[in-house]
Amino acid sequence: MIYNKGYNDFKNFIVAEDKFDARYLGKCETIMALGNGYMGIRSSMEERYVGEVRDTFVSGTFNKFHDNEVTELPNVADVTGMIIYIDNEKLNLTESKIIDYERTLNLRTGELTRKFTYECINGNRIQMVFNRFVSIIDKHVIGQKITIIPEIKDVEINIQSGINGQVTNFGVQHFAEGEKRLYDNKFLQMMETTTQSKIDFAVNTVHKFSISGKEYEPVSHVYMDRRKIGKDYNLSVKKDDKLCIEKISNIYTSRDKENEGLDIDGLKKVSYEKIKESYTKGYDSLIETSMNGWKAIWDKNDIIIKSQDDFDQLAIRFAIYHLVIMTPAHDNRMSIAAKGLTGEGYKGHTFWDTEVFILPYFIYSNPKIARSLLEYRYNTLPGAHKKAKANGYEGAMFPWESAWLEDGEVTPVWGGADIITGKSTKIWSGFIEQHISADVAFATWQYYQITDDDDFMNRYGYELFMDTAKFWSSRLEYNEQTKEYNIKDVIGPDEYKEHVNNNAFTNYMAYWNIKTAIYYYDKLKEDSPSIYNRLNEKLKLDKVYRLWKNKVDKIYLPKPNKDLIIPQDDEYLKKKIIDLTKYKNQKNVGEIFRDYNLEQVNQIQVSKQADIMALFYLLEDLFGKEIKTANYNYYEPKTLHDSSLSLSTHCVLANDLGDNHKAYNLFSCASRIDLGENMTTSDHGIHAASIGGIWQCVVNGFGGVRMLGGNLRIEPNLPDNWSEVKFPIYWHQDRLMITVTKYKLEIENLSKDNKQIVFINKGKEHILKNKICLNIN
Amino acid sequence: MIYNKGYNDFKNFIVAEDKFDARYLGKCETIMALGNGYMGIRSSMEERYVGEVRDTFVSGTFNKFHDNEVTELPNVADVTGMIIYIDNEKLNLTESKIIDYERTLNLRTGELTRKFTYECINGNRIQMVFNRFVSIIDKHVIGQKITIIPEIKDVEINIQSGINGQVTNFGVQHFAEGEKRLYDNKFLQMMETTTQSKIDFAVNTVHKFSISGKEYEPVSHVYMDRRKIGKDYNLSVKKDDKLCIEKISNIYTSRDKENEGLDIDGLKKVSYEKIKESYTKGYDSLIETSMNGWKAIWDKNDIIIKSQDDFDQLAIRFAIYHLVIMTPAHDNRMSIAAKGLTGEGYKGHTFWDTEVFILPYFIYSNPKIARSLLEYRYNTLPGAHKKAKANGYEGAMFPWESAWLEDGEVTPVWGGADIITGKSTKIWSGFIEQHISADVAFATWQYYQITDDDDFMNRYGYELFMDTAKFWSSRLEYNEQTKEYNIKDVIGPDEYKEHVNNNAFTNYMAYWNIKTAIYYYDKLKEDSPSIYNRLNEKLKLDKVYRLWKNKVDKIYLPKPNKDLIIPQDDEYLKKKIIDLTKYKNQKNVGEIFRDYNLEQVNQIQVSKQADIMALFYLLEDLFGKEIKTANYNYYEPKTLHDSSLSLSTHCVLANDLGDNHKAYNLFSCASRIDLGENMTTSDHGIHAASIGGIWQCVVNGFGGVRMLGGNLRIEPNLPDNWSEVKFPIYWHQDRLMITVTKYKLEIENLSKDNKQIVFINKGKEHILKNKICLNIN
Repeated sequence: MIYNKGYNDFKNFIVAEDKFDARYLGKCETIMALGNGYMGIRSSMEERYVGEVRDTFVSGTFNKFHDNEVTELPNVADVTGMIIYIDNEKLNLTESKIIDYERTLNLRTGELTRKFTYECINGNRIQMVFNRFVSIIDKHVIGQKITIIPEIKDVEINIQSGINGQVTNFGVQHFAEGEKRLYDNKFLQMMETTTQSKIDFAVNTVHKFSISGKEYEPVSHVYMDRRKIGKDYNLSVKKDDKLCIEKISNIYTSRDKENEGLDIDGLKKVSYEKIKESYTKGYDSLIETSMNGWKAIWDKNDIIIKSQDDFDQLAIRFAIYHLVIMTPAHDNRMSIAAKGLTGEGYKGHTFWDTEVFILPYFIYSNPKIARSLLEYRYNTLPGAHKKAKANGYEGAMFPWESAWLEDGEVTPVWGGADIITGKSTKIWSGFIEQHISADVAFATWQYYQITDDDDFMNRYGYELFMDTAKFWSSRLEYNEQTKEYNIKDVIGPDEYKEHVNNNAFTNYMAYWNIKTAIYYYDKLKEDSPSIYNRLNEKLKLDKVYRLWKNKVDKIYLPKPNKDLIIPQDDEYLKKKIIDLTKYKNQKNVGEIFRDYNLEQVNQIQVSKQADIMALFYLLEDLFGKEIKTANYNYYEPKTLHDSSLSLSTHCVLANDLGDNHKAYNLFSCASRIDLGENMTTSDHGIHAASIGGIWQCVVNGFGGVRMLGGNLRIEPNLPDNWSEVKFPIYWHQDRLMITVTKYKLEIENLSKDNKQIVFINKGKEHILKNKICLNIN
Repeated sequence: MIYNKGYNDFKNFIVAEDKFDARYLGKCETIMALGNGYMGIRSSMEERYVGEVRDTFVSGTFNKFHDNEVTELPNVADVTGMIIYIDNEKLNLTESKIIDYERTLNLRTGELTRKFTYECINGNRIQMVFNRFVSIIDKHVIGQKITIIPEIKDVEINIQSGINGQVTNFGVQHFAEGEKRLYDNKFLQMMETTTQSKIDFAVNTVHKFSISGKEYEPVSHVYMDRRKIGKDYNLSVKKDDKLCIEKISNIYTSRDKENEGLDIDGLKKVSYEKIKESYTKGYDSLIETSMNGWKAIWDKNDIIIKSQDDFDQLAIRFAIYHLVIMTPAHDNRMSIAAKGLTGEGYKGHTFWDTEVFILPYFIYSNPKIARSLLEYRYNTLPGAHKKAKANGYEGAMFPWESAWLEDGEVTPVWGGADIITGKSTKIWSGFIEQHISADVAFATWQYYQITDDDDFMNRYGYELFMDTAKFWSSRLEYNEQTKEYNIKDVIGPDEYKEHVNNNAFTNYMAYWNIKTAIYYYDKLKEDSPSIYNRLNEKLKLDKVYRLWKNKVDKIYLPKPNKDLIIPQDDEYLKKKIIDLTKYKNQKNVGEIFRDYNLEQVNQIQVSKQADIMALFYLLEDLFGKEIKTANYNYYEPKTLHDSSLSLSTHCVLANDLGDNHKAYNLFSCASRIDLGENMTTSDHGIHAASIGGIWQCVVNGFGGVRMLGGNLRIEPNLPDNWSEVKFPIYWHQDRLMITVTKYKLEIENLSKDNKQIVFINKGKEHILKNKICLNIN
């Protein structure tokens, strides 16, 4: 990967590769993916390669292939593919001589560009440029442009290009074939319908040709095959002429809010009208509109990092780019998938990743989107109720993996190989990884504290609180011996410990959830009787409230031992300790499973990811620095960071604890999970939570921004490499621009006509001690 | 393609290629496919290539993906694939330097061999040999062997190999995932179940390693993924040592007759026990058994052609090889697919191809198998009744495309693009291509006449006759004007003429069907009252018989016009005549559809394939030579031979008409449909009917063997290129060896202790006039 390709306006905005290696297709397919939250497209090449994963996803269009598999985001018919023959030689970068290869994703414009000079067997030399974008403005539109200039002699080009619905999700076909159609000898259309969820899709594509700027219509034949429609074009290009092929496509579905109620013929018609419009506009006009959209995003959201290592600046922009394209901001029936819309991993499902690792970005940067994401959880309450009921509980037991509204739990049940039994390992998360319900409540609270959005709380937020607390009170188990309430048989954030009792994170979060529910119950009853009455009627709150009051203070909350260590669960500290050197900082995660099965890993003091640290991160004011330090030093060496959720949390913690050198090292690793030099980690898609984590490291970590007890606290601690970081945040309804240097914290309130600027000048010796608590207004 | 690779025992038994071209993968995948009638495997390479079609089919295991698609033979989880790294370089023949490449299919042994020397980037040179077979004896077993010898220096090999269920049929997944399992750290097992037909599959595989003959167990890891299980092996091979990797696999299904009643756990167990047995035996022992099986087949069935062009000898053996591997001889609930088991084309469906083009081979060469194939039709009567009923008819209306027993009609409804409307072209064959019912009756009669198998007739044959004739009598439409019975709105054999009235082939065959049924009715009533009574009760024959008698002689049978031309249908001769030069003898069939849509083609005197010629071929004694010649000369120039069913029929006809020069040219084309130099025609699978056609050209054509009115007639007419042809046939229960030279016809009765040999010596001038009619015994 090349990180320094950008100049001037594009400095630190360009992700690039300068050689093609067919062994590592997944890397750039993922990190250079295009999208807009409505849809995402992996950046597979036009021509095909073995090992490519050619995915197009549309948010929220879940389908279940079979009863014994879980619902997933289906891979939509592909429009990006093309078979290109140059003088009868099939274009293929692995076999041919390629000069000056370069592929770049421009984060600022959202355009993907691939350039090279192709040396034909027959001695010709062809300049080729491939451009591609997915519009950030008209979210249905995909544009491609291929420019071909023969340098030595005239050339014959043959292109087979159209719509290919033979693509699958790892071999699974989610669509029933619908009508295929050629209109006006130009516009190609394919209809398909998901097999189980019956969502109709219309995919349209059209080609437009010019030679040296002059439009023309080449000789062509239409072809249709199973789930395929396309055209076969024969083109002659004279030496030094410039052939330009535009391919404009769109995707519409019956799940689109604006298409609700439309039958399949309506969808056909709408999408056909739109493709005609787009055809008239053409690539350059369409991308100009989209680039203006991206400009507005960057104008509003860019974060400036002045670092000795330019990578840091690129990394935060890479994160912002992916946060934009992964998020279905347009529809509150959808949330962010663990791999965004960039891969088949985790099947398009939403985890706690959204609330704990990604939502903070949106709360501080785009509260409207944050609200939409929380409304998604509200909209999935039917599924959460279903899950609670199925497990013998009450209230809202949110699914560990979440898909469509009423789906409930969609975590797959079987995973990778167990090296001892030879069978698939059972995945227990969907059954017993239960902290998610408290995580949603926490996110709701965090959103409210930072945005002050009473309307949201009145409509959705309070109910989320009450309903999750209702779940927890039904979940608690009374321990006759200790006279306390326990939570047994769970998985905490650390997924290498299954079937544990009293996972500290889970117990504290449940406690916090109920405590906060009690607080809001009291407050509503007092201040907002109408809301109280509505919720009381809906959730039988008065009865539940009594349970809360009876139980909450009897919940067992693991306390620090004599060494100040909080036991992660009842057994963790009693388990054996082994040398983990072989498994820590490995290129491939999960190395330990080559030597142990999960049952054995369960018996070792080894963690996949932040667990106690995640507790410190969320409920940070419950614990003092001494305890945090002791636990960090105890648990981190036992943590393999085999989850991409781990490093950023540790980074923020390390920074909190004053070790900004360690924090910067952790940030450097965290920001390289996808963007870094490891060419295989992103094969199945971007690590969405880790992308949110990059922002957390910068703003919550080095920037020191935190909401504590309803107050904004900013306590920056820049790493040695950085001289300045500058980022915007929202606080309540105000938009603040925060500028941090080693000597200065500057807060500019952009929302006020009379801009308030707070300067905090720091003496060099006080760098680490700056702490301000402020309520703006 | 290379045709002369074989020496000594293997002369004209070897199909070979001596260079690898990734553009034409489909060619050898198809023509070098392995199989045994139970299963078929396309000969994709171990390593993957773009454009490969990696198919494994098990006969009769049909599954329907979705209500709007038709049932098809599902592509079973692949065991042939392997990812091979040599010193960290991924083996790929398109990118690496390859010396002395050669791939051969040995028709005599059923072994596929690929050999080359691989030049590594690091300077090493590796000899590699890949062997593969599918056992003709134990029909569940697949064997692979890879031999690797580093010539320059030591080498590190990494192999990822196992079972891959992510394969699809053109993007359609037919299986629900079942359990994946590693036994004994060695045996890999994957269970899967077809989604709609609920057929369980067990696929097992195991690896076995030796270095220079010494067995050893390398370091390995197991991996599981969605529909995937495999092992990752790391191997070190010293310079000049020989690494040998055997991969032994098996496939069992709940459709296997011997596994009926077994639940999925039983299937698991059976197949696991078998893989353990096969593992113990190893590749060399397993293939020895299979080679003995092939030896027996060749000893019994080989045909000797002494031609100036060795290709002819290879071609007939190629045909026999494929006739063996395409035919599910083990199970009378299955028939031959139009592409055998070598491709996804035509979805594993059975057409009239079986009865008219392939069955004659089996009737004359292996009557037991012929019987099984006819029993298949008997077993599909429920589907034929269903179809008749759905169309408002009675009796057995056999489906144009046939799959599982009660499926009935499975022809897809939509085909390729209509260049005028831009929509898919409607495929009418499943609705109105109805001659198939008479074709089945004809095949039954032919089988009976040649084999004398009364048992078959009593159990199945008479009923097939009565039931098809019953259909025809319900199908006939009375024409008040002509006082005749017509058959309107059909497609005859020539599929470029849709919705025609009184297609000559259809009318004559229906007439023949009813006439013959009347004959057998009378005979049974007289001679076999118990059979008559059973059938009468079952089919209400007496009533139907009256209809037959009333109608049969009033069926309109198109007569030759003044030019002796029999109109193919009511309108054909009135349609316009155009210059067909552009469309005849094209590399790609269907060229005419680039200029006309089917509706327009319908208005032109142009035929896809033999139609009147097919009538002459089946009911040959109804027409004189003069009429045949006139019609041949009229229709052949208008026939594009766009169906692979066309050339062989024309070849036999041309020979009958005395033009053995033309016949030989047609044979040369027919025998090259798959085996020839055109590298793309076989992409979707072998042309099964055309393979049967090769045999028909040789035995029925040049060999002159025909059953006429219950008698065996042999009237050979060798082409100039041939000095001798020698082939075995069955006549009734006798096995005859026929030797034909230009001067001699020799018939040896191999079944008699006292071998009867009939010599007919011919004077040179009488070559074309020899005609014998003989009833042996």
